Amino acid sequence: MWKGRFQQETSALLQQYSESISFDWRLWRHDIAGSIAHSAALEKAGLLTPEERAQIVAGLQEIGAEIEAGKFSFKPELEDIHMNIEAELTRRIGAAGAKLHTARSRNDQVALDLRLYLRDEADALAAALRAMQRALVALGARHADVIIPGYTHLQRAQPVYFAHHLLAYVEMFDRDRERVLDARKRLNVMPLGSGAIAGSTILLDRELIARELDFPAITQNSMDAVSDRDFAVELLSALALAAVHLSRLSEDVILWASSEFRFITISDAFTTGSSLMPQKKNPGVAELTRGKAGRVIGNLVSLLTTLKGLPMTYNRDMQEDKEPVFDSVDTIKAALAVFAAMLDGISA
Amino acid sequence: MWKGRFQQETSALLQQYSESISFDWRLWRHDIAGSIAHSAALEKAGLLTPEERAQIVAGLQEIGAEIEAGKFSFKPELEDIHMNIEAELTRRIGAAGAKLHTARSRNDQVALDLRLYLRDEADALAAALRAMQRALVALGARHADVIIPGYTHLQRAQPVYFAHHLLAYVEMFDRDRERVLDARKRLNVMPLGSGAIAGSTILLDRELIARELDFPAITQNSMDAVSDRDFAVELLSALALAAVHLSRLSEDVILWASSEFRFITISDAFTTGSSLMPQKKNPGVAELTRGKAGRVIGNLVSLLTTLKGLPMTYNRDMQEDKEPVFDSVDTIKAALAVFAAMLDGISA
Amino acid sequence: MWKGRFQQETSALLQQYSESISFDWRLWRHDIAGSIAHSAALEKAGLLTPEERAQIVAGLQEIGAEIEAGKFSFKPELEDIHMNIEAELTRRIGAAGAKLHTARSRNDQVALDLRLYLRDEADALAAALRAMQRALVALGARHADVIIPGYTHLQRAQPVYFAHHLLAYVEMFDRDRERVLDARKRLNVMPLGSGAIAGSTILLDRELIARELDFPAITQNSMDAVSDRDFAVELLSALALAAVHLSRLSEDVILWASSEFRFITISDAFTTGSSLMPQKKNPGVAELTRGKAGRVIGNLVSLLTTLKGLPMTYNRDMQEDKEPVFDSVDTIKAALAVFAAMLDGISA
Amino acid sequence: MWKGRFQQETSALLQQYSESISFDWRLWRHDIAGSIAHSAALEKAGLLTPEERAQIVAGLQEIGAEIEAGKFSFKPELEDIHMNIEAELTRRIGAAGAKLHTARSRNDQVALDLRLYLRDEADALAAALRAMQRALVALGARHADVIIPGYTHLQRAQPVYFAHHLLAYVEMFDRDRERVLDARKRLNVMPLGSGAIAGSTILLDRELIARELDFPAITQNSMDAVSDRDFAVELLSALALAAVHLSRLSEDVILWASSEFRFITISDAFTTGSSLMPQKKNPGVAELTRGKAGRVIGNLVSLLTTLKGLPMTYNRDMQEDKEPVFDSVDTIKAALAVFAAMLDGISA
Repeated sequence: MWKGRFQQETSALLQQYSESISFDWRLWRHDIAGSIAHSAALEKAGLLTPEERAQIVAGLQEIGAEIEAGKFSFKPELEDIHMNIEAELTRRIGAAGAKLHTARSRNDQVALDLRLYLRDEADALAAALRAMQRALVALGARHADVIIPGYTHLQRAQPVYFAHHLLAYVEMFDRDRERVLDARKRLNVMPLGSGAIAGSTILLDRELIARELDFPAITQNSMDAVSDRDFAVELLSALALAAVHLSRLSEDVILWASSEFRFITISDAFTTGSSLMPQKKNPGVAELTRGKAGRVIGNLVSLLTTLKGLPMTYNRDMQEDKEPVFDSVDTIKAALAVFAAMLDGISA
Repeated sequence: MWKGRFQQETSALLQQYSESISFDWRLWRHDIAGSIAHSAALEKAGLLTPEERAQIVAGLQEIGAEIEAGKFSFKPELEDIHMNIEAELTRRIGAAGAKLHTARSRNDQVALDLRLYLRDEADALAAALRAMQRALVALGARHADVIIPGYTHLQRAQPVYFAHHLLAYVEMFDRDRERVLDARKRLNVMPLGSGAIAGSTILLDRELIARELDFPAITQNSMDAVSDRDFAVELLSALALAAVHLSRLSEDVILWASSEFRFITISDAFTTGSSLMPQKKNPGVAELTRGKAGRVIGNLVSLLTTLKGLPMTYNRDMQEDKEPVFDSVDTIKAALAVFAAMLDGISA
Repeated sequence: MWKGRFQQETSALLQQYSESISFDWRLWRHDIAGSIAHSAALEKAGLLTPEERAQIVAGLQEIGAEIEAGKFSFKPELEDIHMNIEAELTRRIGAAGAKLHTARSRNDQVALDLRLYLRDEADALAAALRAMQRALVALGARHADVIIPGYTHLQRAQPVYFAHHLLAYVEMFDRDRERVLDARKRLNVMPLGSGAIAGSTILLDRELIARELDFPAITQNSMDAVSDRDFAVELLSALALAAVHLSRLSEDVILWASSEFRFITISDAFTTGSSLMPQKKNPGVAELTRGKAGRVIGNLVSLLTTLKGLPMTYNRDMQEDKEPVFDSVDTIKAALAVFAAMLDGISA
Repeated sequence: MWKGRFQQETSALLQQYSESISFDWRLWRHDIAGSIAHSAALEKAGLLTPEERAQIVAGLQEIGAEIEAGKFSFKPELEDIHMNIEAELTRRIGAAGAKLHTARSRNDQVALDLRLYLRDEADALAAALRAMQRALVALGARHADVIIPGYTHLQRAQPVYFAHHLLAYVEMFDRDRERVLDARKRLNVMPLGSGAIAGSTILLDRELIARELDFPAITQNSMDAVSDRDFAVELLSALALAAVHLSRLSEDVILWASSEFRFITISDAFTTGSSLMPQKKNPGVAELTRGKAGRVIGNLVSLLTTLKGLPMTYNRDMQEDKEPVFDSVDTIKAALAVFAAMLDGISA
């Protein structure tokens, strides 16, 4: 009896160790879009009838609507987003649903989902960087006549316009934006059709899938396609550098807001008080942002280290790719939004 | 009106950026224990009557019981675990609750909570490492006569007992355990009484608090006590090395389970199949474990980088200390438990 | 007297701690090219006579020839390559030499030198990646009919052409090459004229300098220009990913060369024996290359961490930028060259 | 003919790629000490006559004296320090020299050398940390009455004694010292006798060797002994944290020396001027030290990443262990020495 109990515990432990649905659920939109495109190719290849495809599309859209409304119940025992959606689709529409996995593997499916997700996020990041640049320019414009000391070695060097100092960061975020877009360019390639490793004996129209999903190109080598996470690493690298820029700007803001420098005032919403010293206005947002450089650099190290030394092709280690990517994307988007809002409330 | 909407959004964004309750709630047990000990010192100093202290202790225990039962409702607007508990206590018992924060700051409070938490986790980690060692010894003992090739450079070098190979890992996990316990030794120091930075004009009996919480020593310098996260870094370092050991054992297991080496069979529960190739038995647990070395090393980098270059004393950047620590502790405990269970099901 | 001895020791220690000439001497060619271009702008601005400029150019070329011939004696007490060349030039040609530093600071000078150096190295790296790709293609072509098992999870999945497996790496190195060239694009911007932080009261023709040095663009913000090391980080990121690719290829080669897989034979020149087991052929080059991923990832972490949290603009911390960059560039160039040569000697 | 030329180039390239003598020469003292101890065990086992052993000891001492005097010529084609010394010994004393390698492999030899080296360096580091603590105490004692603002969030919180602030760092360096000594405790174990992987058929008196070299214990598992680099990682971890402490102290010093804070004056020897702004006194030593945290953290990442995922036992990847260790040890020793000297010249 104890043995039975132990096995159950092991089994629960194992399921928790192996599952990814607790974090990869957020790929649902891209998983559904990918499946709809895949079904178009299956229909064209004569593997689905138009009716079957219509059932699949309607079923997937219904599931998508439920997920969006928060009414879909994810099952940890189905492990990942792909299985959760596919199993539910098959439960709902029967045989047609089961055909959806024809000529597709979870290896190329997850590669597709992740590329679709990161393409969206690259756009969101580029927009957030632009907004940050605008906030910097606006802050400078509101204080066009303000001159502050410029520093090297934290020693006063030469007087500079406050706006000139801010525009240095506009340059940095411009390069960050370019790097994000260069990463987007390289991730914008369609991997479906690579199968588990060597494609499929069933030849689908990969260009059709690419068109449906707005990819300008398709991957050239199936083994590379299922084992490649370069696009994730490259975006993490770009974000690590953006985090360093944010940490430097944070340091400047923290210095400027100190009573020794006293160059700026941050609006109350973006500072925090102290329980013992209520007169204090701590630049909490800038400090948090500076601190978050650690996690964004750490996430890059995580993925590089996970990939180091892996043999071809897909290895389960790569399931560890998502959390650092999600975390860095979320962190930088939030940091840019909060920081830009804080800049709006700074007076010099 | 748009302005109002925008401010609300900023405010929501900001709250989400600043809050830590979504992850530091798990310090509740240690926060309550710390507050009960602190109240003992307040009573001894005549700042609480015995009745007030009794109210505080009962109120905290009640809140603790509710949290444990999953019935306590945490409020994001109260930001962290300390404020959530303190505000609720004051709501319940009134004036006495508000006195609890006397001669205490969130800076020394969080330092205490984190030390208490990590002391418990160090014990759990040491036990998990012991269990892993036992599983390795048991696996070797079950195959006492099995001889395999020993490798250098992945070339066959000399035949060795399978058990000898496994005992090499027993040595590694022994050093890991020692390192965890050395880290425990250094974190087992009581910081309360340091206040925000320079102690408090109200002198509490710090030795009493230490005794109540089973600390053998108290911190010597208040500025160090509120800005020190060495104990977290040191544990993260020990866990990073343990993760490397697990990654090496995983690599060995993956090699041994390949059809080229074929030294071992892993029981089905710990392998995963393939949708396209159902005959395959993929060593999923070993792969995931090898992959997780990335996150555990990344977590160490995160905290080191966050702390780098921070001026004295407490800076809000340090709020970023908890997530990497929680993640590495959880990851290594789970990996050891799952791996030890897998070893039980291996036959050579 | 002891005091005097102590001061000397401190002074020696300090000089050793501060100097960079022991590693930045290798920027000599770029420093001289930058100075020659700068002198053109000084002449155009009327700050140098044609004769003075001719003296400067001849002097610099003479010094360059001596450095190339290994006859130049660098002086640690002059700290860096800039001062070593400038001081020697002034010693040789007198007053004109001293004028060379007009309207220039070491801050924009070192930024220029590093960009020129990395532009050359980016070209060399792109060529080395191409050569590596050619070696992979050639190896595949020599074994066009060879079929090997393709692996997922290190379990045999489906048979694949040996060449198909190799071509997966051709794809990876193609992306590496693109990333190196994208980094080159962003570093190919001329920073001179930024001065120490805020330009100079003397306005030089920056476009002229850019043309002389073949830069298509000039930096837009002086504060950014002297504190920016993005171009170095971006190249280090690209190289870290290339190192991961090399580590994966190394892992494959090591597996293939094992007696369990036995897919390939590596020619003797690229294997190493063992003192105790002379029959062994250890794949030393592949192992070393896999191991070197550590240093190349570590170098990236070094620079990101060094830059994290630095206030504007130039801080001496940034002197730490060169060694990781030099080391990663050298390591990847050597690894690609040695590995490509090894591939030439592999038979499958 | 071209082929011949190419092969020579490849061969030179390969030698340069594989050799370690350019950096591991510095283990010469420990290699010689280890060989002398090993020869004692060989003599006891009857494998060397007393005369042969005397020849070996005299020969090694002679070589050691020449290395110390800078008169020994290292040969890159002999790859590492072990072969350089052994080959030269055999050249000088003939047959007896060749016997020295009996029952020993380069795998256990290098493990021994590295442990001996790090044991010495751990002592040197502990002493350097003590000296740093003394310099902090002395600086505080010279300014026992000085009160400065204490900061949280870089906002003035409460007044503190300058000495109290400095003593916070004394606490930090005390923990660093403890960690270094805990690492020393774990590395102080004698690995010789492990052979390449599985010991030797010739049984030597390992306890004798341990006594000769002042090791209190011997390694328990030969496979662990030749593949273990925990002791190097653990020391690198301790040094990474020490580097973070130094970076925080540097940040404080840089802030205090700014014209906004103006709490301290650094003596001229430890500041640097500016070519364009000669009035400036830049806190160059503190900046360099803050910057060096990057390399010391990067070195830790390098070694952890190199070791990640390596199968048992020795792999050539591990040749990459030495440079990060040497660099971190050198960097921290130099930083502590220079910083302590700088503290002597600070007035508040």
